[in-house]
Amino acid sequence: MHFNKDALEQLDSRYRAHLINSLSGFKSANLIGTQNKDGQTNLAIVSSVFHLGAHPPLVGMIIRPHSVPRHTFENIKETGIYTINQINSDIYKQAHQTSARYDANESEFDATGLKTEYLNDFNAPFVSQSRLKYALKLVEHQHLAINGTELVIGEIIDLHINPDVISDDGYINIESLNTVAVSGLDSYHTTNLLARLPYAKK
Amino acid sequence: MHFNKDALEQLDSRYRAHLINSLSGFKSANLIGTQNKDGQTNLAIVSSVFHLGAHPPLVGMIIRPHSVPRHTFENIKETGIYTINQINSDIYKQAHQTSARYDANESEFDATGLKTEYLNDFNAPFVSQSRLKYALKLVEHQHLAINGTELVIGEIIDLHINPDVISDDGYINIESLNTVAVSGLDSYHTTNLLARLPYAKK
Repeated sequence: MHFNKDALEQLDSRYRAHLINSLSGFKSANLIGTQNKDGQTNLAIVSSVFHLGAHPPLVGMIIRPHSVPRHTFENIKETGIYTINQINSDIYKQAHQTSARYDANESEFDATGLKTEYLNDFNAPFVSQSRLKYALKLVEHQHLAINGTELVIGEIIDLHINPDVISDDGYINIESLNTVAVSGLDSYHTTNLLARLPYAKK
Repeated sequence: MHFNKDALEQLDSRYRAHLINSLSGFKSANLIGTQNKDGQTNLAIVSSVFHLGAHPPLVGMIIRPHSVPRHTFENIKETGIYTINQINSDIYKQAHQTSARYDANESEFDATGLKTEYLNDFNAPFVSQSRLKYALKLVEHQHLAINGTELVIGEIIDLHINPDVISDDGYINIESLNTVAVSGLDSYHTTNLLARLPYAKK
């Protein structure tokens, strides 16, 4: 079956959103923790966090300005810091619930039962129930004019993790943490290891 | 356990690469098909493809200029087009092998046994063994000065898929296609559905 550009254009917008969101493949599932200068906390599920580089350690994400995580972006611009917390299978339902349209003065932590945790004097909230979490400093944000989204790039400045899940070579067994993957807009998955493969040579 | 910025900085570079690549969570697994103006084909595994927007249908990816996929980026700039092909569990080993350092005049298709397929008069090769694949037109590329990577944004202009895996609401059951997810630099996983969750409301 084949959809050309016109066929994609003519789809119902909700149908197209489900369809196109499925095309990139499995997505990461993370909660972004922020607070404003008055200490009002915010928590938002984001499926667009991606690895950008290891040295310096950089992570990117895409924020849609007109959707729910706008408080997240405002807080990041205001304070310059945020946390990323991997979502595991024990908390994926609460994590998904953070995407509801809470007001700026309502904390998604209170609304969902996820608990704030403050670590190493960092002034943005971590998610207590997350098993792999790290602190970021905003290094760059760019408005992508093509569709009005924002590319947010942060540097990892603190990593909190159980050392038992780090392999001798530095690989983190995120499957053993029950970290989930997302497909489409609303589908959550656990994983089964096929294999780790050796560095590819000709 | 806690790594601060200095501790991350002092890690062995290969250890740090494994560690930091694990932090973003599960990543998508895709093969990028291109060819130059002379028809020399190239195929590269990329784990940084991400959804950027549904209307227009846009997909982003990060290319490291000094690593293997440089032929990919050169071909995309030269021709303005490329294909994205989801990797399934039947071909993940061949897909991984495309990351070896083949020369510009060697095709990863020939080297790995993945087969070219030309669809709908599009002048870039698809992967025959992939079960979900689409054609893209380059719309923008940006050099990210912070670490020398390239952000490449494409618009989806042709989608090829078995209609049996599209749900009534447009969601594509990529798990049923045995699409794999990546963690770290070299780990491949299949998935188990936990649930699709309803649109979150307060």
